[in-house]
Amino acid sequence: MFLAKVVGSVWATKKTDNLTNLKFLVVHPLNLKKDPLTDVVIVADVLGAGIGETVICAYGHAARKAIQPEQPADLSIEAAVVAIVDKLDIDSKAMTKE
Amino acid sequence: MFLAKVVGSVWATKKTDNLTNLKFLVVHPLNLKKDPLTDVVIVADVLGAGIGETVICAYGHAARKAIQPEQPADLSIEAAVVAIVDKLDIDSKAMTKE
Amino acid sequence: MFLAKVVGSVWATKKTDNLTNLKFLVVHPLNLKKDPLTDVVIVADVLGAGIGETVICAYGHAARKAIQPEQPADLSIEAAVVAIVDKLDIDSKAMTKE
Amino acid sequence: MFLAKVVGSVWATKKTDNLTNLKFLVVHPLNLKKDPLTDVVIVADVLGAGIGETVICAYGHAARKAIQPEQPADLSIEAAVVAIVDKLDIDSKAMTKE
Amino acid sequence: MFLAKVVGSVWATKKTDNLTNLKFLVVHPLNLKKDPLTDVVIVADVLGAGIGETVICAYGHAARKAIQPEQPADLSIEAAVVAIVDKLDIDSKAMTKE
Repeated sequence: MFLAKVVGSVWATKKTDNLTNLKFLVVHPLNLKKDPLTDVVIVADVLGAGIGETVICAYGHAARKAIQPEQPADLSIEAAVVAIVDKLDIDSKAMTKE
Repeated sequence: MFLAKVVGSVWATKKTDNLTNLKFLVVHPLNLKKDPLTDVVIVADVLGAGIGETVICAYGHAARKAIQPEQPADLSIEAAVVAIVDKLDIDSKAMTKE
Repeated sequence: MFLAKVVGSVWATKKTDNLTNLKFLVVHPLNLKKDPLTDVVIVADVLGAGIGETVICAYGHAARKAIQPEQPADLSIEAAVVAIVDKLDIDSKAMTKE
Repeated sequence: MFLAKVVGSVWATKKTDNLTNLKFLVVHPLNLKKDPLTDVVIVADVLGAGIGETVICAYGHAARKAIQPEQPADLSIEAAVVAIVDKLDIDSKAMTKE
Repeated sequence: MFLAKVVGSVWATKKTDNLTNLKFLVVHPLNLKKDPLTDVVIVADVLGAGIGETVICAYGHAARKAIQPEQPADLSIEAAVVAIVDKLDIDSKAMTKE
């Protein structure tokens, strides 16, 4: 899974039938560089993640299972929010190579 | 899923039998850098996306389910347009790191 | 799927049983940069793609379905040629960002 | 699979139902460059990997099978620790190109 | 699939049950740059590939099918050696862009 920050939403009228009523967010995968954020991933969300929040996203079957637990294989998505992050504990010593 | 801009089409006579009559587009995945667009992904499309339009594309099972909902596993594709974007709302403040 | 140019072949005597008699090509994924081609992907092929030809390749289930339509899950491959490109129409105006 | 170093943990109250009680680690994929570690992957763990340990992580079905062997398809994860590394033997001569 | 050079082995006592007795190699994916090899992938192997040998590796279902043909879905791996390369024929003319 990857960490990401929610930065926007996407609106689409013309889409695959099985995506009707699904909410799509624009998220930026996070790393620990100081580079500006430029990559964009589109993810489905049913947890209600808001702009600026940090989320955990998953790809593939895991994403479909999060959005539609009963019939995941009916969905044409492959990325979704699976958790909204409360707290991130990073050990700064562990982050340097031995 | 990823955001992309439609920039062309591909024509192929010799192809896997299960791809007959399928339309293939050339798309450029979009990020928020000012770099020229150079990456290319080939996606199947049944929504009728036109040159210059921004689309949401999905990989794998999600792509096959979008193109052929009844028997998705019969298709030899792994990327497809799943939505044509009307509007993209990006929060510029959320895009800088804290 | 990705666009690639066929640049070579690989020969292997010692291999997984289910790969016997399968032909493997060395291909270079294509982008629109002027960089020299350096990345290499190994793909199975039953369409007869020749050196120098441009092909569309697919990953995963799509690749197995192209090579062995009857029992795709029996194959230990995850990349294959699914089409040989006749013509590529790229709109140069669409390739610059607005 | 990829090698990674455990550098932290993530806490999330609001998450997909099937992830309740699952532990998520922040790991850095390892390569052999001297670059500082900046990429981050979120993985589920049931082996008890600690901060600073080197682990082998797997994606997709393999990850779900490691965390929940009985009903792997019920989980909304796609990355997990599958082994904690005791020893890594790298042949330095093999690492230069001929 | 990708080409790689075998550069080492990994030893792990604590691991997912279904990985007992499985051999894990450290391999470097090969490209045609003159860059030093720094990326590392961990792959399972039952073909007996030795240090310094060039191999073809596959991801996902293809990898599991190569290691355990009878019950591939029982394995928590997603990368494996599927062939040991005897000979690589690269056409140098095909490698420059037109």
